[in-house]
Amino acid sequence: MSMDITFLGTGSAYPSPHRGASALVLRTEGECWLFDCGEGTQTQLMKSAIRASKITKVFISHLHGDHFFGLPGLLCTLSLSCSPHGDQEGPHIEVYGPQGLRNFLRVALQISRSDLLLTYAVHELEPSREQSPCTGHLDPALTTSSPQLHPQERPGRTVHLDPDSDCYSLVHDQRFVVQAFQLYHRVPSFGFAVQERERPGRLKVELLKELGVNPGPLYGRLKNGQSVTLDSGRLLRPEEVLEPAVRGRKRINRRWHQKRIIRRWHQKRIIRRWHQKRINRRWASEEDKQEVASEEDKQEVASEEDKQEVTIRRG
Amino acid sequence: MSMDITFLGTGSAYPSPHRGASALVLRTEGECWLFDCGEGTQTQLMKSAIRASKITKVFISHLHGDHFFGLPGLLCTLSLSCSPHGDQEGPHIEVYGPQGLRNFLRVALQISRSDLLLTYAVHELEPSREQSPCTGHLDPALTTSSPQLHPQERPGRTVHLDPDSDCYSLVHDQRFVVQAFQLYHRVPSFGFAVQERERPGRLKVELLKELGVNPGPLYGRLKNGQSVTLDSGRLLRPEEVLEPAVRGRKRINRRWHQKRIIRRWHQKRIIRRWHQKRINRRWASEEDKQEVASEEDKQEVASEEDKQEVTIRRG
Repeated sequence: MSMDITFLGTGSAYPSPHRGASALVLRTEGECWLFDCGEGTQTQLMKSAIRASKITKVFISHLHGDHFFGLPGLLCTLSLSCSPHGDQEGPHIEVYGPQGLRNFLRVALQISRSDLLLTYAVHELEPSREQSPCTGHLDPALTTSSPQLHPQERPGRTVHLDPDSDCYSLVHDQRFVVQAFQLYHRVPSFGFAVQERERPGRLKVELLKELGVNPGPLYGRLKNGQSVTLDSGRLLRPEEVLEPAVRGRKRINRRWHQKRIIRRWHQKRIIRRWHQKRINRRWASEEDKQEVASEEDKQEVASEEDKQEVTIRRG
Repeated sequence: MSMDITFLGTGSAYPSPHRGASALVLRTEGECWLFDCGEGTQTQLMKSAIRASKITKVFISHLHGDHFFGLPGLLCTLSLSCSPHGDQEGPHIEVYGPQGLRNFLRVALQISRSDLLLTYAVHELEPSREQSPCTGHLDPALTTSSPQLHPQERPGRTVHLDPDSDCYSLVHDQRFVVQAFQLYHRVPSFGFAVQERERPGRLKVELLKELGVNPGPLYGRLKNGQSVTLDSGRLLRPEEVLEPAVRGRKRINRRWHQKRIIRRWHQKRIIRRWHQKRINRRWASEEDKQEVASEEDKQEVASEEDKQEVTIRRG
């Protein structure tokens, strides 16, 4: 099974004529999954060899504009390529992202009166308090959408962090398991790990021929893990005629500057730098100024414990 | 004074690699005004000779995504090109558009935690009921923004239709008058007329020299319409030494398929086509179906009166 990655955009902060804003496509047989959707992603898709109509899932890492401002436009354009389908449900797109995304998409599509020929659902990841400075968390009024769904919106779920695996469980299908994990950034941010399931090994064709089993439906049943009874009455179990299972591939999508393994002192430094930047601009709150002042007062000596990596268990 | 127009995008419905979504810039000395801002407008600006930082006003004709989905991203990118300005107010952008635009922009900028180094205000045009089919009007809940302004948002006004001029009065400055007028479309839609004010005529330099007035500050005062007293004691009035005033230029921005002068039968046809389209898709309401059925029942004979143009007075 093919499993390739196309970078539609790697630009930071804004798209440019020669570099799109963040967007990446993971293509497998039959469908494409989009990771981040900055402004202009639909144009980048047109330039690429990807068939946009194959997109079935969209994953948004965090709610900075350069990672999701292209999403309403993309859904509208995908809808234009759908043909009317009578009473049948049209294509369906699952969107995963931080809390607030559902409200944004609903407001954008409702205000633009976008009648879509596809349906969509937004599944929101609930962030934790430690994941970003407090200034990065959204006011609950912004994450609470109006109770009225967009006509083509289907109810989405709120995904909570599983404390055992320290991950968010997003997708479990026959081929893949997708999990999200927390990243440290100015706003709640997530990385995504796509794990392909183990695939059965190759059939030992020579051995099967020696046993008198010729190519046919029995091969398929054996490959699918079913035992078969031969004409001779012998029960042939799949493990006898299959090579060892093929381990599934894994693809992890995370932004380079968002470290999953965070040194505590590094984390403190990011917060301080962020507050200082706000002061250098003019939008600093009193809280920011106090925080920087108190940090400067302290003689900061990173303890040995602090310098050790805080291990966040891998998903 | 220069007054040129640059088409950044003329595409309909969506942007493509070789044709941007709707956007047009009117450039005069010192500033640029943007009309519509589809997705990717900021990239089109980068490709053009326009200096994006000169944009001071944005006019949005109607709230279909291909006309305004690029606005949040554009504001964020313009902000990145601003330098911190201490306690001074940074650049300010005035945005004009239909009701609902303020809420969209506020939600998009708040959810993306966009701290801007510029300020903006959204002035909303109040549509009338006859301007579009009832299905095109927004639910009041969507046009009522949360009372909390975005930190860099300044209060905007609601502009009502002036029944005398049948226009919305948007801008009145020393150089220009900008008015909006209603267009008929599926959603409330507006055209914009930019009228340059009358400019003083040229100075009759030969005559001035004959009168013993040499080039200098007096020329400026005369050009600005002030009378001056010469050394000889003579009062020189500007009309004596100025050519006739130069009539201001006018630029009108409206979409080609949105006729301001509407034939009534044409208007009916648009409505019927729109309802039929909704039925052909699957999102038709009962109201749509009834409307089309009743229209089909009627033997529609356009009366002479109907065929005459309904004159909507020019602004």
